[in-house]
Amino acid sequence: MYSPVIESLIEQFAQFPGIGKKSAERIAFYVLNNMSNADVENMAKILTYAKSSVRFCDVCQNLTDTSPCPICSSHKRDKSVICVVEESKDVSAIEKTGQYSGLYHVLHGVISPIDDVSPDDIKIKELLLRLNGEVKEIIMATNPTVNGTATAVYIQKLLKPMGVKVTRIAHGIPIGSVLEYADELTLTKALEGRVEML
Amino acid sequence: MYSPVIESLIEQFAQFPGIGKKSAERIAFYVLNNMSNADVENMAKILTYAKSSVRFCDVCQNLTDTSPCPICSSHKRDKSVICVVEESKDVSAIEKTGQYSGLYHVLHGVISPIDDVSPDDIKIKELLLRLNGEVKEIIMATNPTVNGTATAVYIQKLLKPMGVKVTRIAHGIPIGSVLEYADELTLTKALEGRVEML
Repeated sequence: MYSPVIESLIEQFAQFPGIGKKSAERIAFYVLNNMSNADVENMAKILTYAKSSVRFCDVCQNLTDTSPCPICSSHKRDKSVICVVEESKDVSAIEKTGQYSGLYHVLHGVISPIDDVSPDDIKIKELLLRLNGEVKEIIMATNPTVNGTATAVYIQKLLKPMGVKVTRIAHGIPIGSVLEYADELTLTKALEGRVEML
Repeated sequence: MYSPVIESLIEQFAQFPGIGKKSAERIAFYVLNNMSNADVENMAKILTYAKSSVRFCDVCQNLTDTSPCPICSSHKRDKSVICVVEESKDVSAIEKTGQYSGLYHVLHGVISPIDDVSPDDIKIKELLLRLNGEVKEIIMATNPTVNGTATAVYIQKLLKPMGVKVTRIAHGIPIGSVLEYADELTLTKALEGRVEML
């Protein structure tokens, strides 16, 4: 339908997660119709520069272009707590709350036998290497999915003999939601995790 | 939240139409985690090459990297019919039907007084220049919106004295849909456009 150059531009965008053929077409036409040549050259430069300079932080494994990353090298962060998450975007989500001042550890995935992801394929070894005497608590903040929970339990068992406290983030009814629309598992978790009102 | 390089990568994707902050983050992490360096360099090259080589076809104003475009220069197309559309993606939509063998003309917009788009801002002059004796019919295939319809009527009035037949694509109940869910205007158009069953 389109000339080969336009087709290949559309294909580039269509490979992105959550972008179908129609959205890719819309983005390609945005690039061709609405962006200036300078804008497009700038975008191309940022793409290649980001890809070549961003890597994993040697400490927390989060994506960064300096290592250690800004969080690991900050003097303001509480180095006695490490929050373990699945992906870099989870770090961003927790940082947005502004309520957490400890460190992070990014696993880059979860253990999943079906997808052939074993404990060695995610950054668990790197977490164990961080356990010096300074770390007092590990918060497991993997997602409440089957694999996320299994990964949390697996790591908790590894850490048990090391004398570090392991906690799991709470699961329950989201704020602003109503009981009526909660699924049974969430409701069960909300009941199990009930706390005394003082 | 992220290091400046990652932030600027996310911003690049967030400027695209239909891409919010969350989707832009997901795409940025896809680039950083899932694409190879070679893939990213290739994408950067395609972006700059497409932007620098793609322009409007001198004849139909569609986006192309050769002028005239493949459709205008094809010997298989019926040069007596021109289908007038708003955007390049409309050409693609009609081509996908495989039922149209005439030529196209892309207006690149519609007349819209509110948005300060006058007839001179879209490719109407270029359409009039194409009217040699060979063209027998102009099919107005602008969208059935207020501006799309007004633009169709405006062009039809311009063309009237030139002795060329001007037609409008049919509007009615979409195939596979039901009357119950059709809005009143669509239903009115469907009634007005009724054809005899033979």
